[in-house]
Amino acid sequence: MHRMLVLYPPPSDPDAFRSYYVDTHLPLAEKIPGLRSYTYGFDLATPDGSDSPYFAKFEGEFDDEASFLAGLGSPEGQAAGADLANFATGGAVLLHYDVA
Amino acid sequence: MHRMLVLYPPPSDPDAFRSYYVDTHLPLAEKIPGLRSYTYGFDLATPDGSDSPYFAKFEGEFDDEASFLAGLGSPEGQAAGADLANFATGGAVLLHYDVA
Repeated sequence: MHRMLVLYPPPSDPDAFRSYYVDTHLPLAEKIPGLRSYTYGFDLATPDGSDSPYFAKFEGEFDDEASFLAGLGSPEGQAAGADLANFATGGAVLLHYDVA
Repeated sequence: MHRMLVLYPPPSDPDAFRSYYVDTHLPLAEKIPGLRSYTYGFDLATPDGSDSPYFAKFEGEFDDEASFLAGLGSPEGQAAGADLANFATGGAVLLHYDVA
């Protein structure tokens, strides 16, 4: 299995991020060809309560790296990527890797 | 479900990290009370091949936040945390969150 990991640094308006993410961005992400499943979460915290570098996280599963790259490059993948500008005011870190 | 996410910036010796992680650190992590399951991976990459901020990732699942905090504070959790100094030469970012 190959995974796409997206880490979102804190946005300027966390509540606006949250609702846009669930109502608009996830439905776009779900259309990416080859995406088998995904999980996500908000309010990532450090154990000691110090500032967290990330506010939200998404992780999606693909069969393999080729499937991930094809999905990312598809019209649906490009649309989801372009949508980041509409809510990810703190930016987004997109990484991918093989599950060991 | 509540998850512990550990992100490892690039270490000075990736091969040494990899073997120590699998042979020594994961067996310590597996002893943490309350840890239901986990996944991990190495060689996190950016889609465009630019430098990746992280080399490895671990994600473990607990029933809830209280269970995670208890596991982290247990002798086994403390031992796994102390072991980071033995291989995580690039540091480690430890976060936790509720799966949405």
